[in-house]
Amino acid sequence: MSDPRVAGVGLTHFGKHPERTGRDMFAEAGLAALDDSGIDPDDVEALFYGNFMGELAEHQGHQGPLMAEAIGLDAPATRYESACASSGAAIRDAVRAVRNGEQDVVVVGGAERMTNIGTAGATDALAIAADDLYEVRAGMTFPGAYALMARSYFDQFGGSREDLAEIAVKNHEHALTNEHAQIRSEITVEDAMDAPMIADPLHLYDSCPITDGASAIVLTSESYAEEHDLDAAVAVTGTGQGGDKMALHDRQYLAESPATEDAADEAYADAGIGPDDVDFLEVHDCFTIAEVLALESLGLYEVGEAIGAAARGETTRHGDLPVNLSGGLKAKGHPVGATGVAQVVSIVRHFRGDGPRSDDVADAETALAHNAGGTVASATVHVLEVQS
Amino acid sequence: MSDPRVAGVGLTHFGKHPERTGRDMFAEAGLAALDDSGIDPDDVEALFYGNFMGELAEHQGHQGPLMAEAIGLDAPATRYESACASSGAAIRDAVRAVRNGEQDVVVVGGAERMTNIGTAGATDALAIAADDLYEVRAGMTFPGAYALMARSYFDQFGGSREDLAEIAVKNHEHALTNEHAQIRSEITVEDAMDAPMIADPLHLYDSCPITDGASAIVLTSESYAEEHDLDAAVAVTGTGQGGDKMALHDRQYLAESPATEDAADEAYADAGIGPDDVDFLEVHDCFTIAEVLALESLGLYEVGEAIGAAARGETTRHGDLPVNLSGGLKAKGHPVGATGVAQVVSIVRHFRGDGPRSDDVADAETALAHNAGGTVASATVHVLEVQS
Repeated sequence: MSDPRVAGVGLTHFGKHPERTGRDMFAEAGLAALDDSGIDPDDVEALFYGNFMGELAEHQGHQGPLMAEAIGLDAPATRYESACASSGAAIRDAVRAVRNGEQDVVVVGGAERMTNIGTAGATDALAIAADDLYEVRAGMTFPGAYALMARSYFDQFGGSREDLAEIAVKNHEHALTNEHAQIRSEITVEDAMDAPMIADPLHLYDSCPITDGASAIVLTSESYAEEHDLDAAVAVTGTGQGGDKMALHDRQYLAESPATEDAADEAYADAGIGPDDVDFLEVHDCFTIAEVLALESLGLYEVGEAIGAAARGETTRHGDLPVNLSGGLKAKGHPVGATGVAQVVSIVRHFRGDGPRSDDVADAETALAHNAGGTVASATVHVLEVQS
Repeated sequence: MSDPRVAGVGLTHFGKHPERTGRDMFAEAGLAALDDSGIDPDDVEALFYGNFMGELAEHQGHQGPLMAEAIGLDAPATRYESACASSGAAIRDAVRAVRNGEQDVVVVGGAERMTNIGTAGATDALAIAADDLYEVRAGMTFPGAYALMARSYFDQFGGSREDLAEIAVKNHEHALTNEHAQIRSEITVEDAMDAPMIADPLHLYDSCPITDGASAIVLTSESYAEEHDLDAAVAVTGTGQGGDKMALHDRQYLAESPATEDAADEAYADAGIGPDDVDFLEVHDCFTIAEVLALESLGLYEVGEAIGAAARGETTRHGDLPVNLSGGLKAKGHPVGATGVAQVVSIVRHFRGDGPRSDDVADAETALAHNAGGTVASATVHVLEVQS
């Protein structure tokens, strides 16, 4: 049972593209990944595809076969939906299929069209990631939910709006060199502090934007990569998934994420590594506070310690543990179903010395991709390692 | 790599239950399956869950964690969506996870709430299984699409409305003893012939009803079943998946289903059996013509031969190859996301000598479950065998 290699990666520009269909965007990303891999599309045995709100944004379900056809595959396809962790879930099953020896070449990807239905439409569609009966009908929106989590964190462990602003500043700065990123503008802590309030204590720059975009990777078995002499040095060496109660009011703590903890434990054990081995990572920062919760739940910081990490410079691209070198969801953008795979694309590009990166971790060998759904009722973690 | 055993099965009543939420129905089916298995829910390591139109019918996505919580699981959960083959796709990945040795006990299931949005609402929601841009906006509905497939079949291979009526009569008769079935009333060929036209040549009794319901099974590794001395003689010994072009106009033939052919080929090879080994089966008869296409694509009949199978008595419960002993989608009902797993439930109950069955195949050892999405742009086939 050998670990799948990442043989190709592809992304569209992340941003406002209301005129582009999901199909159009996925075709671009999927074909780019296939082209990058140099693999004949006829060799592809399956598509694992993540999408979240296609029913509401495009009146389109059953996107698996639609997207397979869009990139010229004659292969079975399944759509995975786990809210914002949709393509993370897709990666997980693709890893299973390749490890099983069942399939040698698969495409994994995701797409989301969001801006065509406007901000109110997208906010309403995003809300279906929460419990409709017990949360959404009571007025809950995601900025509101993450604001509750931030307040709970401040209350239990301390921290301030300034600490969150430092995270936004860092991720905006990271996105400056990412040509796929939605937001490429530097901001200051003052800009973030002075931005309009969304849901106290979260202001505009604490929140990721609404984004259209698509992502894809090609995974192959180790033997296929060797036989075809592919440039595929990065392997997915660990996979993990966790779950939690859906509604915030059913949880014991709002400022901890057991789903991420479980996913990380499983992924570390699967890869045979621990948190100390991680050189850099992409985490699911749909809101600045989410980056804090992720770093702690991933075991990279003690509980209550990650809030100051960006301010202390530890998670910037010049720090010891760069977080979200791509700009994160915050600045790169968050086309929901595409996000999990896009994190892997960013990591692979960094390993290759291509795309947004940090020269300070040029010799990095181990990275994590952390993708979360809803208020982290679901989460996936994948370990990526350069194989020597 | 041993094949997963089916350790427990559960179903709700299939029918019109507009007052019941998907969560309420899945809780009933999931808890019934767990209870049937006798397994401690704390042993369950994951939920693989199929749902198709939750976003439109209940304004609820991210149903994986919601449904895990509903049946008391503290385990990760993923929602699979492949239109009407959603829970077939879920079974497939669950089989992978158990075969990998990654998980020893998993629940697989599905649910669909449909009647609460009315017939027009459900018809509109079902349409998202087709290509919105190129089919649905041109006025295509599923009865219309399957009518085109029936016309093409008649044109290429012969057959008549009477042949289709015989299939409806058979499946209604099969459902008479199925306490979970939506429609338990005998009909005659004349009733079917005289029923109102839906889309020529399909009339009312050629079409499955709109249905609310849920289904669940518990799968375990062989070693777990042995260690816990479970009553789990039925194993999933083969799994296959196929895909096709999404839109009918992009296909070479309308009266053949390559996605089912590919899924069957893979599943037979995986199980090490052939069509001749199949004792009985459940196929995806969303319309009567779909049963014909399925039997041919599964390699059980030559192309052009299955149209008369019911009329000849071959596929009735007293025939050599009973098809849809549960009543099929046609009479048992078709709560979309629940259907794939419900087929497995029916098969396992038959093997056990429980539920709707045929005494004529009392010594059956091998069965197939065939689940299809849209106009068979996706399909899964699973082989179930009694282990001695």
